[in-house]
Amino acid sequence: MATSLFNEGLTVHTQSHDYPIVITDQCDMAEQVAPYISGQQVLIVTNETVAPLYLQQLQEQLAKSYTVAVCSLPDGEQYKNQASINQIYDALMAQHFNRDVTLIALGGGVVGDMAGFAAASFMRGVNFIQIPTTLLSQVDSSVGGKTGINHSQGKNMIGAFWQPQMVLADMSTLQTLPARELSAGLAEVIKYALIMDIEFLEWLEVNLPAMLALDLAILGEAVKRCCEYKADLVAQDEREAGVRALLNFGHTFGHVIETHEGYGNWLHGEAVAAGMVQAAELSQKMGWLSLDDVARIKRVLTLANLPVNPPAIATDVALNLMGHDKKVKSGQIRLILLKSLGQAVLTDDFDTQLLTEVLSQQAG
Amino acid sequence: MATSLFNEGLTVHTQSHDYPIVITDQCDMAEQVAPYISGQQVLIVTNETVAPLYLQQLQEQLAKSYTVAVCSLPDGEQYKNQASINQIYDALMAQHFNRDVTLIALGGGVVGDMAGFAAASFMRGVNFIQIPTTLLSQVDSSVGGKTGINHSQGKNMIGAFWQPQMVLADMSTLQTLPARELSAGLAEVIKYALIMDIEFLEWLEVNLPAMLALDLAILGEAVKRCCEYKADLVAQDEREAGVRALLNFGHTFGHVIETHEGYGNWLHGEAVAAGMVQAAELSQKMGWLSLDDVARIKRVLTLANLPVNPPAIATDVALNLMGHDKKVKSGQIRLILLKSLGQAVLTDDFDTQLLTEVLSQQAG
Repeated sequence: MATSLFNEGLTVHTQSHDYPIVITDQCDMAEQVAPYISGQQVLIVTNETVAPLYLQQLQEQLAKSYTVAVCSLPDGEQYKNQASINQIYDALMAQHFNRDVTLIALGGGVVGDMAGFAAASFMRGVNFIQIPTTLLSQVDSSVGGKTGINHSQGKNMIGAFWQPQMVLADMSTLQTLPARELSAGLAEVIKYALIMDIEFLEWLEVNLPAMLALDLAILGEAVKRCCEYKADLVAQDEREAGVRALLNFGHTFGHVIETHEGYGNWLHGEAVAAGMVQAAELSQKMGWLSLDDVARIKRVLTLANLPVNPPAIATDVALNLMGHDKKVKSGQIRLILLKSLGQAVLTDDFDTQLLTEVLSQQAG
Repeated sequence: MATSLFNEGLTVHTQSHDYPIVITDQCDMAEQVAPYISGQQVLIVTNETVAPLYLQQLQEQLAKSYTVAVCSLPDGEQYKNQASINQIYDALMAQHFNRDVTLIALGGGVVGDMAGFAAASFMRGVNFIQIPTTLLSQVDSSVGGKTGINHSQGKNMIGAFWQPQMVLADMSTLQTLPARELSAGLAEVIKYALIMDIEFLEWLEVNLPAMLALDLAILGEAVKRCCEYKADLVAQDEREAGVRALLNFGHTFGHVIETHEGYGNWLHGEAVAAGMVQAAELSQKMGWLSLDDVARIKRVLTLANLPVNPPAIATDVALNLMGHDKKVKSGQIRLILLKSLGQAVLTDDFDTQLLTEVLSQQAG
C-alpha cells in the first residue's frame, strides 16, 4: 500500500478561515484533532452505529486533557431533524458548556451535518471538527461548510454555512463501512468525474474494483482528488451563488426520490446515482450527450454496485417535489445538466416537455 | 416637532454588507422597504398584537408587487422558541418559497429575533428586513445581527449572527406601545448612557419625561444615538469577542431574573433594569462607583418607571443560572461592571464573595 499518499491532505480556504483536511490511515484520532481544540470543553456527537467502533478510544484519550461529553444519536437520514438537534443542544446545556466548546462530529454525513448546524447555532456559533467515517462524508461533507437538517417537506431546508476547524479522514474507518454505504459514497466520487474531469472518469473505470476491495491508498487518492475538486469550486463560490451549484448534479432528481420514498429507505448516494442517470437522460434529450455517453454513465455506476433506475413516482408528484428544491429561482426549476462528459452546467433553459418525458419513464 | 430629525437614519457597516437604518415617522412602510426586497417572494413575520395595527396596510401595498404571505406568531418572550420558528419554516414551505424570499419582521424584539434566525437558517440563509415597532427593538435589535431563540434552560442559547438588508424604525408605532413596554425600552436607552456616555445620561435625566409623553422627535433622537453607539461597538467586534460584550451590561443578572421567573413575566427591559442596579452595586462594592452613583442610577431608572429591585431568588440558584450564561469563559463567570458612570468593563477579576453578597440581597 502506498502509504506516501497519506498524511498529505490539503488546506481549504474559506472566507472565515483556512482549515486542513488530513487524509490518513489508522491514526490516533485524539492526537490528530487536539491541536484544533481551542478551549477545555469537548462534545463528541456520534451515532449508535459508529460509537461502538471508534468512540471509546477517542473519548478516553481526549478525557486526559479536556472535559468530554458525548451525544449519541440514532443512526439514519430519517433522524436528521430538529429532535436530534435538540438532543445536542440539551447535552451542551446539561454540561454547562459555553462558547469555548468544540463539537467533534464522529460519523457520516448525517452526524456531520447535525453537529455542524448545532455548532453554527449554539450560542450563535462555536467551533467544530469533522471526523467523517464514511466515504460519502469524506468526499462530500469535508469541504464546503454546508450544515443542516431536513424539514418534513424537504431535505436540508434548515441549516447554515459553517466551516470546521479541521477534517480528519482516517481511511481505515472504511473497513467497517457496510458495502452498500461504500457504494453510496462512490456515487459522489463518480459525480466529480462526470461534472468536472473525464480523465478522472477513466481513472475510476480502472480503479473502482480496487476501491470496492478496500484498497485504502486508492480510496485515499480518490478522497483527496474529490476534496480538491470541491475546494476549487467552493473557493470560487462559498455561498453557492454560481458554480458551486454544479456539485448538486443528480441531486434535484435524487432529492425527489429521497423525499418520496422516505428518508433512509434509499441511501443518499443511491438516490444521487439514479438522479444522475435522469439528469444524463435529459442532457441526452437536449442533444448534449450521446446515447453512448448515457450508457457509459450507467456502466460506471453499475460497476460501483449502484442503482441506475429510480423508483416509480407519478410525474406530477415528482414535478411538485422539484418545486421545493433550493435551486428553484423565482419559481423556475433549474437543473444541473451535462454539456458533455466532464462538463456540467446549471440551467433553466431546458424544455419542460423533455423533463416530463424523463420523469414519466419512472412514473408508477 | 422637529421633523428634521427624521428621515436621516444611519448606515451600519458589517462584514457581510452595509445596510441603512431609516428613522422616520408615519411612513408608508411598503414604500420604504421595497427597494430592499430582492426577489418576488415576501413573508411577513409578525405577532397577534402587532398584526391588527400595521399588518393590513403593509401586506396590501406589498401584494401589488410581490407574492406575500404572513406568519403571525403568539405574542411574548415565552413563545421565542423552536415551535414558533417551526411555524415560520412551515409557512415558507407551504408557499414553496425559496432562496429568493425576503422575510420582513414586523414587531418587537421577539419577532425580530425569530424572523432573523429563520432567515439565517432557512435554506442556509435568506434576506430579511426589520420593522421594529417597540422602543426596545428599535434601539437594541436594529444593530448587531443577533438572532435566535431561547432554550428551556437559557435565553438566546440558539441562534446566529445574521444582518438585515435594512431597518425601518417608524417612531409613530410607539404611539400604540403599552406604557410598560415603552419603559422597558428605556432601560436599554439608559444602558447606553451608563456604559458609554455620561453626557447622554445627563441628556436623559432632562428628556425622559418628554419621552414618556411620546415626544417622537426626542424619542427618534434617542433611537438614533443608541444605534450609533451600538454600531460603533459592533463595527469593532461583530462576533462579540471583545468590546461588544459591554452591551450586555445588566444582562447577566437580568437573564437570571428572566429565566427564574419564566419568560414573559418580567419584561426583558425590566429585568435588565434590575440587573443593571445589581451590576452597579457590585461595581460599588469593588470600589469603582460611589453610593451616590448607584443612587443616581436607581433614580434615572425610577424616572423611567422601571424596577430597581430584583425578585427573590435563592443565591445558589442565581449562581447556577449564571453558569449557563454565554459570557462564561472556561467556567469563569465574567461580568460587565462600571469603572465609572459612562465607562463599562468586561471582567472576571471580581471577588466572588462580593457577587454573592449582591445576589444574597435578593435571596428569598
